[in-house]
Amino acid sequence: MELISENSAFGGRHCRYRHQGQSTQCEMTFAVFLPPFASEDNPVPVLYWLSGLTCTDENFMQKAGALKMASKLGLAIVAPDTSPRGADVPDDPDNAYDFGQGAGFYVNATQAPWSQHYKMYDYVTEELPALIEAHFPVTGDKAISGHSMGGHGALVIGLRNPQDYVSVSAFSPIANPSDCPWGQKALSGYLGEDSQQWAQYDAAHLLAEKQHYIPLLVEQGRADEFLAQQLKPKALVAAAQKSDTPLTLNMHEGYDHSYYFIASFIDEHLQFHASHLGLAVVEA
Amino acid sequence: MELISENSAFGGRHCRYRHQGQSTQCEMTFAVFLPPFASEDNPVPVLYWLSGLTCTDENFMQKAGALKMASKLGLAIVAPDTSPRGADVPDDPDNAYDFGQGAGFYVNATQAPWSQHYKMYDYVTEELPALIEAHFPVTGDKAISGHSMGGHGALVIGLRNPQDYVSVSAFSPIANPSDCPWGQKALSGYLGEDSQQWAQYDAAHLLAEKQHYIPLLVEQGRADEFLAQQLKPKALVAAAQKSDTPLTLNMHEGYDHSYYFIASFIDEHLQFHASHLGLAVVEA
Repeated sequence: MELISENSAFGGRHCRYRHQGQSTQCEMTFAVFLPPFASEDNPVPVLYWLSGLTCTDENFMQKAGALKMASKLGLAIVAPDTSPRGADVPDDPDNAYDFGQGAGFYVNATQAPWSQHYKMYDYVTEELPALIEAHFPVTGDKAISGHSMGGHGALVIGLRNPQDYVSVSAFSPIANPSDCPWGQKALSGYLGEDSQQWAQYDAAHLLAEKQHYIPLLVEQGRADEFLAQQLKPKALVAAAQKSDTPLTLNMHEGYDHSYYFIASFIDEHLQFHASHLGLAVVEA
Repeated sequence: MELISENSAFGGRHCRYRHQGQSTQCEMTFAVFLPPFASEDNPVPVLYWLSGLTCTDENFMQKAGALKMASKLGLAIVAPDTSPRGADVPDDPDNAYDFGQGAGFYVNATQAPWSQHYKMYDYVTEELPALIEAHFPVTGDKAISGHSMGGHGALVIGLRNPQDYVSVSAFSPIANPSDCPWGQKALSGYLGEDSQQWAQYDAAHLLAEKQHYIPLLVEQGRADEFLAQQLKPKALVAAAQKSDTPLTLNMHEGYDHSYYFIASFIDEHLQFHASHLGLAVVEA
């Protein structure tokens, strides 16, 4: 594991690292924010943040305005990259932004040529937490959140692994990828045309199939340009009703798909996770 | 004036505009954040933010994490671009990052070919405030701040125009540009080799020459990679002592030149300006 850069921030530290990914078989980059006073004697819980299409580990750390509240709460944040990358990693033949590098969709690909490197589900759920817990002063307590493609990833990972995460939240998630263009392109490409294979990576499907007990919080802007065609939060509501699972979905008039939306409500999501992680919640 | 984009943020609005600059004789871009409830019946004061080398109007709005506090305080923020731009605007012959487009240094250039467009001092002090006050629900009350090259700009503009700004602050400013490589390159290029012409754009010189009454706040990281060679905050301290001008300079162990540093302390600067603008100061 190699340190790329380090910045003091809000009394804590923001660091970027690269390491050789075992699950993804390529060099991977991630960022970690450690709040003040995190130490071996005072380990802190971790919020994993999954970013959206075209993003890297940097977008959230630079633009979400989350570090002040994380510092106050005593919460670490880990932001992985959004896909495997590198000259040896296959990419979308048309260099599209919504498939291939920068668009891993947090799945384990089964189709050639993607299946060699595109194992982001294993990377995020197993390899990265093990690495973080081995090298940083953190507890094993975890929560997960994300935006758009990363909101999809957070919901899927939280719903499938409630033993590993205390709470899950999402901003503008791709809620029902089996039923939207972004999701259909990605899932058919990574998993093949048999849409039964897609269900394990579809939050609305997972939420509908049984009652879930993990706390769920979703934020969505009504002026989001991708709302109707790609995001479909109503599918989440219908699924939660079907399985009698509690879900909080906050719809916000006038807000779009940008980081200005995320920044406007990130503190409330950090407080939500902090409350489930047993941290003392402080005012925004 | 043409709206480029608009985002809801913290109950207010972040908008980018382009317009034909009179002082700079080219199309100019700026961003404005209007807090909630700003209206003709409830006009708000404005903080002008001047960015550093290579930046545009976007860096501060995306990365500083300032909009939550600005929203709470009821403070508008205006961020101009850092230079004239466009195919007709001369640029550094070597495409250097520290001269020409993206590096206007907030001066009125007197030397050809720069003198036609590089009039950022007039643009920031006269043209832009007049435009803002004509088109947005703001009072005439102004404060000014900035980072690095923009910290230099804010200090120079505030010290030379105390009748127009109630307070001035800076992060990691180029405090004594007559005595550092960045400043010498820019001032000699825009103003010519006669260094007597540079003094009007040198904060340390302006601060030393007479007692000033405008409130001054400067933030500086001790781990800033440009501290010793380019920034020289000790020159500000010596100048303030010489003229018996009150100056608050906060030095921060471990902090660098990045936006992680700005974000860590921006709320305190907004509160500082708010107190001088007559706004009710709220907790961070």
